[in-house]
Formats: sequence, structure tokens, C-alpha cells
Amino acid sequence: MSDSVGFIGLGNMGEPIAGNLLKAGYRLRVFNRTASKAAPLVKQGAQPVGRASDVAEPGGIVLTMLSDDRTVEEMCGEPGGFIEKLGANGIHISLSTISPGAARRLAEQHRKFKVTYIGAPVFGRPEAAAAKRMNVLVSGESAAKKRVAPILAAIGQATFDFGDAPDAANVVKICGNFMIASAIQTMAEAMTLAQKNGIDAAKMMDMMVQTIFACPIYQGYGRALSEQRFEPAGFRMALGLKDVDLALETAAASTMPMPIASLLHDRLLANIARGRGDMDWLAVSLGIAEDAGLGKSGDTK
Amino acid sequence: MSDSVGFIGLGNMGEPIAGNLLKAGYRLRVFNRTASKAAPLVKQGAQPVGRASDVAEPGGIVLTMLSDDRTVEEMCGEPGGFIEKLGANGIHISLSTISPGAARRLAEQHRKFKVTYIGAPVFGRPEAAAAKRMNVLVSGESAAKKRVAPILAAIGQATFDFGDAPDAANVVKICGNFMIASAIQTMAEAMTLAQKNGIDAAKMMDMMVQTIFACPIYQGYGRALSEQRFEPAGFRMALGLKDVDLALETAAASTMPMPIASLLHDRLLANIARGRGDMDWLAVSLGIAEDAGLGKSGDTK
Amino acid sequence: MSDSVGFIGLGNMGEPIAGNLLKAGYRLRVFNRTASKAAPLVKQGAQPVGRASDVAEPGGIVLTMLSDDRTVEEMCGEPGGFIEKLGANGIHISLSTISPGAARRLAEQHRKFKVTYIGAPVFGRPEAAAAKRMNVLVSGESAAKKRVAPILAAIGQATFDFGDAPDAANVVKICGNFMIASAIQTMAEAMTLAQKNGIDAAKMMDMMVQTIFACPIYQGYGRALSEQRFEPAGFRMALGLKDVDLALETAAASTMPMPIASLLHDRLLANIARGRGDMDWLAVSLGIAEDAGLGKSGDTK
Amino acid sequence: MSDSVGFIGLGNMGEPIAGNLLKAGYRLRVFNRTASKAAPLVKQGAQPVGRASDVAEPGGIVLTMLSDDRTVEEMCGEPGGFIEKLGANGIHISLSTISPGAARRLAEQHRKFKVTYIGAPVFGRPEAAAAKRMNVLVSGESAAKKRVAPILAAIGQATFDFGDAPDAANVVKICGNFMIASAIQTMAEAMTLAQKNGIDAAKMMDMMVQTIFACPIYQGYGRALSEQRFEPAGFRMALGLKDVDLALETAAASTMPMPIASLLHDRLLANIARGRGDMDWLAVSLGIAEDAGLGKSGDTK
Repeated sequence: MSDSVGFIGLGNMGEPIAGNLLKAGYRLRVFNRTASKAAPLVKQGAQPVGRASDVAEPGGIVLTMLSDDRTVEEMCGEPGGFIEKLGANGIHISLSTISPGAARRLAEQHRKFKVTYIGAPVFGRPEAAAAKRMNVLVSGESAAKKRVAPILAAIGQATFDFGDAPDAANVVKICGNFMIASAIQTMAEAMTLAQKNGIDAAKMMDMMVQTIFACPIYQGYGRALSEQRFEPAGFRMALGLKDVDLALETAAASTMPMPIASLLHDRLLANIARGRGDMDWLAVSLGIAEDAGLGKSGDTK
Repeated sequence: MSDSVGFIGLGNMGEPIAGNLLKAGYRLRVFNRTASKAAPLVKQGAQPVGRASDVAEPGGIVLTMLSDDRTVEEMCGEPGGFIEKLGANGIHISLSTISPGAARRLAEQHRKFKVTYIGAPVFGRPEAAAAKRMNVLVSGESAAKKRVAPILAAIGQATFDFGDAPDAANVVKICGNFMIASAIQTMAEAMTLAQKNGIDAAKMMDMMVQTIFACPIYQGYGRALSEQRFEPAGFRMALGLKDVDLALETAAASTMPMPIASLLHDRLLANIARGRGDMDWLAVSLGIAEDAGLGKSGDTK
Repeated sequence: MSDSVGFIGLGNMGEPIAGNLLKAGYRLRVFNRTASKAAPLVKQGAQPVGRASDVAEPGGIVLTMLSDDRTVEEMCGEPGGFIEKLGANGIHISLSTISPGAARRLAEQHRKFKVTYIGAPVFGRPEAAAAKRMNVLVSGESAAKKRVAPILAAIGQATFDFGDAPDAANVVKICGNFMIASAIQTMAEAMTLAQKNGIDAAKMMDMMVQTIFACPIYQGYGRALSEQRFEPAGFRMALGLKDVDLALETAAASTMPMPIASLLHDRLLANIARGRGDMDWLAVSLGIAEDAGLGKSGDTK
Repeated sequence: MSDSVGFIGLGNMGEPIAGNLLKAGYRLRVFNRTASKAAPLVKQGAQPVGRASDVAEPGGIVLTMLSDDRTVEEMCGEPGGFIEKLGANGIHISLSTISPGAARRLAEQHRKFKVTYIGAPVFGRPEAAAAKRMNVLVSGESAAKKRVAPILAAIGQATFDFGDAPDAANVVKICGNFMIASAIQTMAEAMTLAQKNGIDAAKMMDMMVQTIFACPIYQGYGRALSEQRFEPAGFRMALGLKDVDLALETAAASTMPMPIASLLHDRLLANIARGRGDMDWLAVSLGIAEDAGLGKSGDTK
């Protein structure tokens, strides 16, 4: 296995992940469209390059952490780009949350250049990424998964293998984000009901997350809801809508309804229409409060 | 405090709770409409009585665990019944999940007989009740809560106090059951999406409940969903609908919509219409599978 | 058939209906809780009475137009009230929109006094009532329906018979109001979509109601939506919620979901929570506009 | 104006529309991928051509009636295709129900060849098309609209102009189809509620469509629902889902939720998953019946 890897996409998730690879001893070539974002990693020893394709070496490994289907597909489709440069025996580890359809198209496109596509989306916010507490999902060809296992081990606390299909890990990731979105909307409805009935909603959530809902999602989001911490966004509502829409698209492509996802789509859209697209997706709770006749935080029945 | 208490309602929750009171050293007078259900407790030392009112002694404490508003209100409203018998300084601990409206009406009715109403609904299935791992919510007058604290400590692993209002604990309990119902529907939608995309849904849930959803509700229900264990019911779907409807009624009385609860109401009703009212409420997942074109467990896309 | 009838409930529907009975030559004894409301009818020849029971004569006919289940049931249940006074061969024509359950209970209660209950809810707003353009639904015992046919013919443009069951006409009425509520929400969603895309929504609705939706409900409500005429209310939103809830309750009692009705319940509640309970139920469109990021009428994308 | 026009797409809508152009005296060049479908028109005097581009003459007019965005865009984008052949002063009248986004892209693409795009989607099923009872919506550049007015007058009973934007007529068409889909689901919920309560649902709908809902949509679909006529499809459910999805996509692009449309999407998908994609979209009522515990037509509570 090569000790030298490429990394494209140094946003608020990409940067701490790349940092962990450096800490694990990997030599890193890094690229970001806005080059200045590479600076902290360069200080830690990463080598900045001027073009995306320069992160790749023939037969090597490149990780990407980009925002959506279109960005990943454009980057991979560039003539003379990093996929062509990787060539035979090359592996592309895609950490982004993209659609299963895009994953399948990418796998097929990569094959033309004898590159293996490995989907490896992750659960965890930026602080979890920094602390190496992410959970990594992975799927794709067995030999390639074996080769990249140490890399995935270097960036997360656990890796979960969902088989050979290039899109499987992404389906699971989409399911997870859908489950988180539903938990947020559900908590917010319950807290608003409590508040309207004269009960301290924070105290209620505190009980829930100590007992039957004592898990990271409810604890993290439950507390943030109690404190009405909507900005800065850990995860922007506009991205949340993108992920719920990935669930709906995947479901429609599979010919099945997902009524909870449809409802979440509607509620996220209504909140974005009211100007909350850049808040944390927790802010869907503001729409629930308004529909309950409550104004800004602090109002009661 | 009296070491002798009364207990009415020895169903699949009432019986193990009463059993724990016996283990904690309380002398117990027990009553159940179907008298034969008292037998196991009588073996453990409980004293069976022929009329509900006989469980009470003046100024004493009676616990009830009954199925719904109507049953509790009828039992408490009986002329010459246990509330009249309790009289001044008497306390009625109502463990049932009832509506906040019923709780307020009961508190007022009790006051006429100088009896204090304490709402103490619990989280936990029968096996948790037996193992003393229930979480107990409580609200009502302070002095009475202080007096019954040892009793509540004897039946659960923790008690959470939501203040002086007689209905507050019930509102919290209703919020919790709503959150559980939403989690079940959400897991089932996600698992069906996974299944339709060729992914092992049980494996996916296994990952979820080891990581970001590592809490009792997701672990217990997630595994039962994976195993399609719908019978015998730990919690009957018809009771699940009752509880979701309590959330909707409480919300309507508070002038607020709860869109997730409305959706759950619809899905539970559709499954009950198909003959699943006596299955565990997990069986809402069968409706999701059918709406995805899947037949009985085992079918795939 | 008696040419003299009693009438209880002179609100904005009851008054014009009673007026048409006078015009048709009936002698009318009228009662309203707020007695002053009887004045216009008294000028037209109606005889005001001091107690509800005074409108009835033994074996005669009484019509009631009241607001809800509770009011009708209380009025009919009064000891020495108009039902007892009607007695053998008496007929009570209930024009109110009430639940099927209440209709069945009333029919049974009436039977004790040998009075026949006839359910005869009506479609039409106050202006339609005044113009005798209402459509009247009826159900109940055949002989009684035959006897009251001329009365119903005197207040509407057509009578539709739904058989012998006392509650059947009410079920149909509830279905109709549900269909109207759905049409309003649907038109409002469509008009908002048009507006957000730079299209004159009024012009669009004008086309619709001249062509494929050329019927009274779409024409009347479509124009009112275009003109944003929300006050004074022809039909108050709070009453609209009551009627949608009757549909949901009847559906739940029949073990079936009505997903559109659940959605309407949620949207009406959200608008009432924002202070629109006394506006016309058309004002649900304001909630749609807000969820689209539009402010008051006139704003665009 | 040219008396000779081209027509592409001779499906169950295109054929009767082209027939009316022949009857109105137009000379017609026709093309269909499956050439045999042109036969009936050729008998009536139409001239069949071998390639789509052959229907066009420089500066002339071509109508298309195709199934979806992709088909229209591919046909128009063909190098050396009919758009290039039309060239300066040419007009393309697109009768298909496509997305507003596609309409805007087409208008821009056409401009490169100095062709004017006119959107002219229609309301009406095949039998209405044959009887010249369609309603035609139109939008696009004024001069071109003036030139094509006689053509549109020859195929429908009325033309409604929605201004200069190339996509406006399509937005209105999408709104209309959404309103129809909602009316169908609403009628079916109401009829199922009636049926479950022992009422003759056909009789109820008969009353509705004679009175407050006396318009083509409710009359046509109401009767078909009463008769459970699901096949052959007048409008296939899969196409119905396509149109509801166009509403949802247009709404999402406009940043607004359409909760009724989301619900319709879910219900249509659930029915398609159960194998009803080729039935008339009326068959959504089968899903409602199943969710009510009713089996095939004829079952009652």
C-alpha cells in the first residue's frame, strides 16, 4: 500500500479528515478550489498542488470530500483529470454523501480508466471528524476495500462494510441522515407540545436523553434544540434538504413512498422559504413553533 | 408513611410493578376485575380483595394501572369507591397513560374527597417493569410527591419530577410515546429503502444502533424490526394508536398541529384496518412494505 | 300535516331558512338563546317564544339549526324540553352538521319519547339559504321523511334522500365539507405556485372555473381566493376545523385513515394558532403563502 | 400564415389533434417514431414523412405532442433536426406537458436557430381532443402567438393566453393536473368513508356532481370512480405521478412546499408499487380502500 495519498476538498469536513491522515503518518498531496483553505494542512506537512489532477499518482489512492453529485461527477469527468491520472490499480475513495445513481455512474466511468470507485460516506460533524470519532461506511470491490482499510481506520473510530455494490454505502448514509432529520422534527414537535402545556421542554429532553433516547443523535440535537442554537450551522438546512431529497429520489427510483421523508421535505422547504437555509437544520423547530402560534424563542402559550 | 398500599389493575404492566412493591417490603391489597390475575401476587404475599374500594384505607395510598381515560375515571368516580374510602390525606398514584384533560378532571374530583392525585406514568415494557428498570415520571402536589417517593423508587430505576401540575407527567409521557412511534415508523421506512436497494437492512440497523442511535428505543425496536417479531405484542398497535391520538388531542387542545403525529395516526389506522390491531405496533412496518410493493417478510424488490 | 312548526336556532343560517318557511306559508314559533335575533322574523310574522320547549306542540314538527353536537344534545336532553313536548308522532328535523355518533344517540333518545329524528343537513352559505338555493340532504324513517318533504322543499332547491339510517345524511354532509376544504387548500397551493412563478393567479383560476372546474365550489371560493376576501367570514375557520375533525373522527370510528383530512386538520390548526380562527376558512391560503416565503397579499417571489 | 404545418407525435392525444387540423383544412406532414401509427391520418390526407426533420419547412410551423421533457429536448436538439430546418421565422408549438425548466431551456435553444418556442399544453382526454372540446393554454412571444392562433382555435374549444414567458402555460397546466389529482384522491377518500358507513357512495357522488361539484372533472372522474373503471386507462397512473412530480419540482425550484402534492406523490407511488402503473390514475382509490381494510370492489365494512 502506498503511504502517499491525494485529497481533494478541504471544507469543514475535509480539512480535519485530511489532518488525521497526516497524523497517521500519510504523506498528503492536497487540492482545494479555494487554495487558501489548504494553509492549515500545509503547516502540518501536507503538500499543496495547483491542479486537482496533481494529487494523483498512477496506481495510487485519492480521497474526495465534495458537496454534491454534480461537483463529484464534474471533478471525476475532467479530461486529463485525477481519475485518468490514477489509471490502472488506482482507487478513488469518495467520502461525499451523493446519490446511489451518481455512485453507480461514477463506478462505471472509473472502470474505463481501470480505477476502482470506493464509496465511503461518513457519519459525524466537523468536531467528530477532528476527534477521529466518525463512523465510516464503505462499499465496493473487495480487494480495493482491503487496500484502503488502514486509511479508513485512520480517519474514523469504526468502519462498517456494506458489500460490493458501489452505491450501497451511500444508500445507508442517506438512510441515516433521513433518520436524523426525522428525529429532529419529532423532538421539536414534542418539545413544542410540552412548552404549550406549561412544561419545561429542556427538562423533558434531558430526561429523554438520559434514558430511552440516550444516544448521540438525541443528546447532541436535543441539547442544541433546548438551547435554540441555530447558528453557526453545524449542518446547513439547505444541505439537510438535499439529503432528505436524496432519500426521496432513491425511494422514487425504487418505487416506494417514504411518507416521513415527504413531510420533512415540506417542512425544510417552508423554513428555507422563510430565510433559514443557512441556519442549522435544527431550525425546522422554528417553523413548528410558528405553526403553534409561538413567536421567537421564549414565548409561551 | 404507610407500609401498606392498595393496587388496582394487574395487567401485564400492573402485575410486575406490584411484584416489586412486595419485594420492597410493602404489604399489598390488590384488586383486578378478572380476579384470577391476582393469583401470582397472592402467592408472593399480596392480599386479594373483592371490591376495588377494599384496597384503600383511610388516609392511605392506592396505585392504579388501568388501560385508558374512561376506565380510570369510572373507577375513581364510583360512589363509595376507593377515592371516597381514601378520604382526607389519601393519595392516588395513577400509573396509567391518560390524557392531560383526564388528569386535570381527576385531580379536581379527588379534591372533593380531600384525596391528592399524583400522575406517575412510566416508561418501560413488561420485562423492564419486572426488572425494575422502568423510568418513572411524576407530577402533582409537593408534599404528596415526597410521601410517595419511596414507592416510586421501589418500582423504577429513576424518578423524574415535572412539577406541581397534575397533568404534567402525562404530557411528558405522551411526548415520549409519540417519539417512540415516530422512531419506529422512521426505522421501518429506512429499512424498507435499504431492502429495496439490495442492502441487508438488519446489518444497517445493527450499525445504527451501535453508533449514532445507540439507545434503548432504537436497539430494542430496531432488532425486533430486523427479526420481524410482531407477535406476541409487547405493546399492542391499538394501544399505540390510542397514545398517538392522545398526542393529537393534547396538541389540538393547545392549538398546534403535530404533522408527524397525524401521519402516524394515519399509518397506524391503515394497519389496524388490515387486521393488525393486536400485533405489536412495530407491525406498522408491514404497511410500509406493502406500499413498497413487497409482500410478507422475505420478499425483495 | 301541520301548517305550524317550531324553529330553534336563528343564527346566520337559521334565520334565512326560517324566513323561507314563513314565505312558504308556515306559521312559525321561533326560539333563540339571544332573543333579540328573532326580531327580523317576528316582523315577518313569526311568533317568538320564551323557552325552547314552547316552540313544540304535541305531535308536531320542530326544526333546529345549532352549532355542534353538544348544543344539540343538551337542547334535546333538557328535562321537560321540546322533545318531551313533541311526544308521540312528533318529528325533530335536525339541520345542523353534527357527528354520525350524535345523530345515532339522538335518534335513540328521541325514541323514548316516541319522537322521530330526521337528519337534514344542508349545503349552502347564508346567501344561498336566503335565496332558497340550498341543497338539502335527508335520512331517517320513511313515513316521517314523507311528512316533512314539503318543509324541506320550502327551504332548498333540491332534497337528496340517503335512506333510513338517522346518521346517513350527516355522513354525506361531512364528506361534502371535507371535499370543500380539500378544494380550498388545493386551489391555494396551486395559486401560490403560479404566483411564485410570475403568473397571474387570479387569471389562472378564472380559466379553471370557466372550464374543467366550472362548478359552484371552485367558482365561489376561487374568486374569493383571488380577491383575498377573508373577512367577514362566510364560514369561520374554527367551524371548518370542527367539520374536518368530524370527518377524521368518523373515519377513525370506521377504522380508516383519511390522509388528506389529516393534512387539512394540521393546516387549519396552524392558521388558527396564528390568530385566524374567526376568518373565513379560505384564509388557510395565508399559511401556504407564509410557507412559501411570501408575506401579506401582494408580495411576490 | 402557412396553410401547411408539421406534426410530430401521433399517440392517443396527438392523433385526434392532428385529425382536427386536417378537418380545418390544413395540409399536414406527420411523423411518428412508430410509423404505422400515422396510417389513420394518412387516410384522411396527411403526408407521412420518414424523418422528424422532414415535417418542417423553412419559416414554417411544427407542432409536437410528446411524452416528457427528455423526449422533447432530444427531438429538438437533434443536429439537422426539425428546429434547424424551421430556422428564421419558424415556430415550434409544444403541446406536451413538460417542466417549466425544460420550456425555458427549449426557448433559449430555439433562439439560436431564430425559431420561436410557443408552449401550448392542453386540458382534455383523447375523446375531448377528438371532439375539439380541449381547452388550450398558451404562452410565448406575442407575434408568434398571433400567427398560431388559428391553429390553436382549430384544435380546442377555447384558448387561454398566459403572457410572454415561454414556461407560463406549462406552469398553469401543471397546476391544473395537480388540482385534478387532488380532486381524485379527495373523492376517493370521501367515497370510502361513505362506503364504510353503509352509504351508497355512487349515490353520494351523484348528488355532489349535480350540485356543488357540477363540473367536468368531478362528473367525469366521480362517475368513473363509482363504476370502478380503471382500465383501459384514459390517463395512466405512471403519467399522473410524472405530472404531480412536475408540480413538486417546480415548487421546490420556487422554494415552497406543496403538502397536498407530496401526499399525492406518496399515494401514487404506493399504488404503482402494487402494480397499478398502467391503470388509470383513478386507481389510487384502490389504495385507499386497502388502507380502510376493504378488499376488491364490492367489499364493505
